[in-house]
Amino acid sequence: MSVMEEFEGYAGRALRFLKENNVKVWDKIALTIDDAEIKGLLLPAPRGTDNVIFVKLTNGYNVAFLVDKIRKIKVLGTEKVSYKIPEKIVTQQIEHPNVVIVAAGGTIASRVEYATGAVKPAFSAYELANAIPEIFSIAHIKPIELFNIFSEDMRPAYWIEMARKVADEINGGADGIVITHGTDTMQYSASALAFMLEKLSVPVIFTGAQRSSDRPASDAAVNVIHATLFAANGSVAESLVCMHASLDDTSTLIHRGVRVRKMHSSRRDAFRTIGDKPIAIIRQGEIMYIKKQFMKRGTYDKSETYADAVFEEKTALIYVYPYMDPDIIEILIDKGYRGLIIAGTGLGHVPNRILPTIQRAIEEDIIVAMCTQCIWGPVKLDVYERGRVLKRMGVIPADGMLPEVAYVKLGWLLGHEFDKSTTIRLFTKNLKYEIVTSEPLDAFFHNV
Amino acid sequence: MSVMEEFEGYAGRALRFLKENNVKVWDKIALTIDDAEIKGLLLPAPRGTDNVIFVKLTNGYNVAFLVDKIRKIKVLGTEKVSYKIPEKIVTQQIEHPNVVIVAAGGTIASRVEYATGAVKPAFSAYELANAIPEIFSIAHIKPIELFNIFSEDMRPAYWIEMARKVADEINGGADGIVITHGTDTMQYSASALAFMLEKLSVPVIFTGAQRSSDRPASDAAVNVIHATLFAANGSVAESLVCMHASLDDTSTLIHRGVRVRKMHSSRRDAFRTIGDKPIAIIRQGEIMYIKKQFMKRGTYDKSETYADAVFEEKTALIYVYPYMDPDIIEILIDKGYRGLIIAGTGLGHVPNRILPTIQRAIEEDIIVAMCTQCIWGPVKLDVYERGRVLKRMGVIPADGMLPEVAYVKLGWLLGHEFDKSTTIRLFTKNLKYEIVTSEPLDAFFHNV
Repeated sequence: MSVMEEFEGYAGRALRFLKENNVKVWDKIALTIDDAEIKGLLLPAPRGTDNVIFVKLTNGYNVAFLVDKIRKIKVLGTEKVSYKIPEKIVTQQIEHPNVVIVAAGGTIASRVEYATGAVKPAFSAYELANAIPEIFSIAHIKPIELFNIFSEDMRPAYWIEMARKVADEINGGADGIVITHGTDTMQYSASALAFMLEKLSVPVIFTGAQRSSDRPASDAAVNVIHATLFAANGSVAESLVCMHASLDDTSTLIHRGVRVRKMHSSRRDAFRTIGDKPIAIIRQGEIMYIKKQFMKRGTYDKSETYADAVFEEKTALIYVYPYMDPDIIEILIDKGYRGLIIAGTGLGHVPNRILPTIQRAIEEDIIVAMCTQCIWGPVKLDVYERGRVLKRMGVIPADGMLPEVAYVKLGWLLGHEFDKSTTIRLFTKNLKYEIVTSEPLDAFFHNV
Repeated sequence: MSVMEEFEGYAGRALRFLKENNVKVWDKIALTIDDAEIKGLLLPAPRGTDNVIFVKLTNGYNVAFLVDKIRKIKVLGTEKVSYKIPEKIVTQQIEHPNVVIVAAGGTIASRVEYATGAVKPAFSAYELANAIPEIFSIAHIKPIELFNIFSEDMRPAYWIEMARKVADEINGGADGIVITHGTDTMQYSASALAFMLEKLSVPVIFTGAQRSSDRPASDAAVNVIHATLFAANGSVAESLVCMHASLDDTSTLIHRGVRVRKMHSSRRDAFRTIGDKPIAIIRQGEIMYIKKQFMKRGTYDKSETYADAVFEEKTALIYVYPYMDPDIIEILIDKGYRGLIIAGTGLGHVPNRILPTIQRAIEEDIIVAMCTQCIWGPVKLDVYERGRVLKRMGVIPADGMLPEVAYVKLGWLLGHEFDKSTTIRLFTKNLKYEIVTSEPLDAFFHNV
């Protein structure tokens, strides 16, 4: 650990206190306040914490102690300190809307492994639900444990399983679904479910956390509460993402799954709608709709919702860069790939070095579609010479679609074994609001 | 052409006028105003143009005509209308600072091919300079033609040529360099020159255009004027980018080449500094510095500047995605690649499916470094289990570096044939302000 990490987040008086007493983050400690001795683990703190320290007590709770009140503090050495989130007994209200919380892993369901300081997925759906008792005043909660993995290991087979589970729960009467999921690939899973769930009748909302649920300043509670609120009461029957709107802990955004991207590796407000406005903002428990056009709850009956869950794993997503090696794509052609999303430069361009390879891919009947690695803005293959060459070859402009979404959409379509012209027709058609045709002028580098 | 493109940008009265007279964009036309007949080409207009039409006259000028003043308009059919930007005779001021304008292709040096409407690189450096006569009142201009290509075809060999040419011109007395360049890969070239130019003594400023110089509402003029201004008078001896600050045509940002990214495929203000503030903003000819820390002009003598221009082309940049095929990387290992930048998810993670491949790459002595595809935010391989596994394998966290910049930096370092530990030490060292160690809180999704 670096010096900064040893005292993560502490500043001023708190930092001096820790240094003087030679206590570091994750140390097992005993501290004396008044006449009581309290044991626990020193937790990292939110940046700039200057007059309290955070301690995880043996009962699982995180408590802040004023440095000035601590009479004595010592490191306990190798003494074992364990904890468990208490499993509260909760009274469920039968008249509340039915919300199913599907736990699919990720930071939100993780705890810190105190031996190493590493974060591992560990919480059960029940633990998670009980850790945030506010949700029981919003909905009748049914927690389900589906996966216990980090989201970087998500894969098409799991999307299929998730889509089927969600459809089952909706058919079984759920008024809304919350999926707790790792943030790394949440945008891919939310897109997959957008395409895989047909005649969706209730909201399906992914949520997660950028800091694990057992750390102070975790963003998990607000995200889960707001996701539950929208699942129970929201009007939008789409695949959505609910994450922090800003750095403060009071508001969240409801993003369309097919328009959202994780734009920051660590901030709580990392998730941003790209090229459009978010669906809604939730402030202090109140939902304010920003978008007017969406699939409305109740357009279909719950019994009509079904999972059209297929995926062609021989689909790839390739970002180009200057002078990139054509063999990166050649190998995929050799392996019998059937779909290729290229994140080109600018309006949808690629280096001349890979033109013959793209030509070959198209000759081998691979569907090749072009997005932009700029993230924002259209794909236009009519403006520049290179675009025209690509279009003549048969490259399809995935205009208005994010690269990650185009990848999921193409894999899903290819899984259907439609004929080629049908696949292309559906790929370029706006199926689930994934295509932005006219970007609002104030939607660049801006959300709300 | 779609209907929208046939009348691109026109609205209201102007649109009705064009439709009534059956005149479309790119048509060769003759119009009568008072008693004069004027010939030219109908140009596309900035969005929402509602009372004028833009015509490119045979003398090369673009002129706006009030619709109400036009007595008659007709399409000339197949009659040939050609034009040429006039090569004005300009008096150079010997006492002005010496600015060399290096033309390296791109939209800024493009003209629309009127037969097809496609944009092709065509303007010479002299034509470009003469098209923007304002620059001669700022500096003594020496235009040089280096490349006439679109920037998607830029490659390491050209970066090397560019770096050498720039060093030569500085040694020869240039007080600043402006490089006109395509916007698609400008960020790569600006990074390459940041690393390749040692003991840089004057500003080196890339600029370009999102709309070609011979179109109305081109952003070229302001960008070139401000780039020339900063090259002549700016205090920052680094590799920089000067592009529009906003949609209006009055202000530009000076970005650090190693911190900038093209974030929109078509907007004039597409270039944004990521994870930091831009170096400066230029408003109506006035430079206002935002950053305080930079390499100052004159720290070195012009004679000291030199090109340390090498590059290992067996370096790759790979964005991961869920369940990505390991063979995309295996093929590079087989081909003897020496450096690999991975744009991982979140804090720097990859799917478990490619872990054995990364292990193999490291065993084969390839330098593997991790960035984040979130674009913003740190890479931390200490927080999560997957990160720790990667770090134990020997993956280097490229913390604080943009993926594109890390690719250029690693290729440049590998070109030196240092021993491995030196390469890694220099890769993780902040050489040209490419590493952001502490992102300003207000630098996410925001520039100025």
